[in-house]
Amino acid sequence: MESQYRTEVASLGEFGLIEHLTDRNETVNGGTLLSVGDDAAVIDHFGKQTVITTDLLLEGIHFDLAYTPLKHLGYKAVVANLSDLCAMMATPTHITVSIGISNRFSVEALDELYDGIYAACKRYDVDLIGGDTSTSVKGLLLSITAIGEVKNDQFVTRAGAKENDLICVSGSLGGAYLGLQLLEREKKIFLESPGVQPELAGHSYPIGRLLKPEARVDIVRFLQEQNIVPTAMIDVSDGLSSELLHLCRKSGVGCVVYDDKIPVATETKAAAAELHLSAVTCALSGGEDYELLFTIEQKDYELVAKNEEISVIGYITAGDRGAVLQTKAGATHKLKAQGWNAFT
Amino acid sequence: MESQYRTEVASLGEFGLIEHLTDRNETVNGGTLLSVGDDAAVIDHFGKQTVITTDLLLEGIHFDLAYTPLKHLGYKAVVANLSDLCAMMATPTHITVSIGISNRFSVEALDELYDGIYAACKRYDVDLIGGDTSTSVKGLLLSITAIGEVKNDQFVTRAGAKENDLICVSGSLGGAYLGLQLLEREKKIFLESPGVQPELAGHSYPIGRLLKPEARVDIVRFLQEQNIVPTAMIDVSDGLSSELLHLCRKSGVGCVVYDDKIPVATETKAAAAELHLSAVTCALSGGEDYELLFTIEQKDYELVAKNEEISVIGYITAGDRGAVLQTKAGATHKLKAQGWNAFT
Repeated sequence: MESQYRTEVASLGEFGLIEHLTDRNETVNGGTLLSVGDDAAVIDHFGKQTVITTDLLLEGIHFDLAYTPLKHLGYKAVVANLSDLCAMMATPTHITVSIGISNRFSVEALDELYDGIYAACKRYDVDLIGGDTSTSVKGLLLSITAIGEVKNDQFVTRAGAKENDLICVSGSLGGAYLGLQLLEREKKIFLESPGVQPELAGHSYPIGRLLKPEARVDIVRFLQEQNIVPTAMIDVSDGLSSELLHLCRKSGVGCVVYDDKIPVATETKAAAAELHLSAVTCALSGGEDYELLFTIEQKDYELVAKNEEISVIGYITAGDRGAVLQTKAGATHKLKAQGWNAFT
Repeated sequence: MESQYRTEVASLGEFGLIEHLTDRNETVNGGTLLSVGDDAAVIDHFGKQTVITTDLLLEGIHFDLAYTPLKHLGYKAVVANLSDLCAMMATPTHITVSIGISNRFSVEALDELYDGIYAACKRYDVDLIGGDTSTSVKGLLLSITAIGEVKNDQFVTRAGAKENDLICVSGSLGGAYLGLQLLEREKKIFLESPGVQPELAGHSYPIGRLLKPEARVDIVRFLQEQNIVPTAMIDVSDGLSSELLHLCRKSGVGCVVYDDKIPVATETKAAAAELHLSAVTCALSGGEDYELLFTIEQKDYELVAKNEEISVIGYITAGDRGAVLQTKAGATHKLKAQGWNAFT
């Protein structure tokens, strides 16, 4: 997890640490008028609207450093926030990053974390413009706020889905959940028999989905280019079922989703088979895929069909019909939120 | 600390808790296009520039619930961020609040915390527009991001102070530090002899400065009304010495500050005397006063002098002269940063 050399954070002091972590920070957005190093940052969206989201990630709750490299953690923490901006049809522009760290973490370990943070900034043309740095009594915590922009009144909420709209989802689902199950299996084996080599061969896809997810800025750009304005949109962070229920509740509608239309990658199906799990159940209930779930008017079907990364998985119904999964075998099931709940 | 009744957070679940904490949330800013409840919030600053700052507050590091009522903690956490916006000459408009809580905290306790957060929102006409809520392994943590607005290019950084500028500070200093010393004294006595009544009579001023500080939006408004554009500005959160050194370093200048010009309230002097401390040292090294430290051109002196809440405490010199405290007795001392360092 950590490099060969260990520099104590205390040797730099708070301001020294901030300088160390941010001296390689480069801003690329013209709107970044003032970045790290003052009381606050200043951005100019030149008349566009500002979109803001924030996430808190705590060691022992949201991540386990036993199988999360710090670089991946930093990258993923940024991506999770950018994904929320994408779900508004906004373009990510800036982030702030606050960290709390116990004395277990060396400067080298923090450098790895920031390698991942800066890699995500570079990948998505996002500027890191501020944050806060503190010691913690125990463990690592990350609080990231992401800021984006959207043309006036072009943002998309969860609340606009209408009866007969088509339900679309980007990419494929269930992979991150299976990646997690594979890593937890290997962690368990390792703890019981430290000598045994991990059996992760052939599973780089689901593990990659878990450790290095991407935010679907490409889907947002495609929809913008095609002049498709989704009627409602949400990102899939807690599992498809949970997100469908959010979207339906906010929009006051119901839905029918076909189990055989839910996109699941071949590698995800293979991992599910190996672990004796249902791949569709993993897609419905497993979190952290960071795909986009959105609804479109039927007239936009042809346009959406051009993009192989988008699957139409069902349609919106009247609210009193509830949210329903229709199986290929002909059975129907009420959808239940089985997503991750931080309080149970 | 907590109310008579105890509702377990787990009984509400994550989304139930968010709804519970935000169902009384009212937005007052016309620019708040979308608030809590979607993937992100949307704000419109109508062509103004957006100013962003963020703070992380951890139990056991930044606050001690033994003598910080949760309502005060919530209020102060918001104020500390708004103070950073003031230090840019920005007007606060929005906040996001993320909390991590262990199962020690009931819903009633969180209601107290949010009472304070909402009280600050109301006092400062700020909208709460988002956040994140999670369980924590241990203790309470708060991560607040504050957003404000400023007319195009009217923000003030730490970097613009010029030789011969006058150094000004708002309000009075050292009070919060002495409030903390008084509370720590009483906590120690209480732990040693639980039956002894706390001796805090007559000390409501310094304790109030610690527990319920205010952000100096009034000073920002005054400067704007008088068309005074400070050449540099910073808020006093870590002690006057530390902030002067930041400002001088960023501006590439030195300074002379007169010890007898540093504003210290009568009640702060009384508390300092009782604790055998130097009030000026408390003002120089004690943190959390949340006053504004700024520099102005000499031509603005008459305008600033109209405001009794602003004291001129010294002047800016060439960088090679360093940052110096000049005592009434004629001695000079190099200023040292003795502010709070989270890593030592």
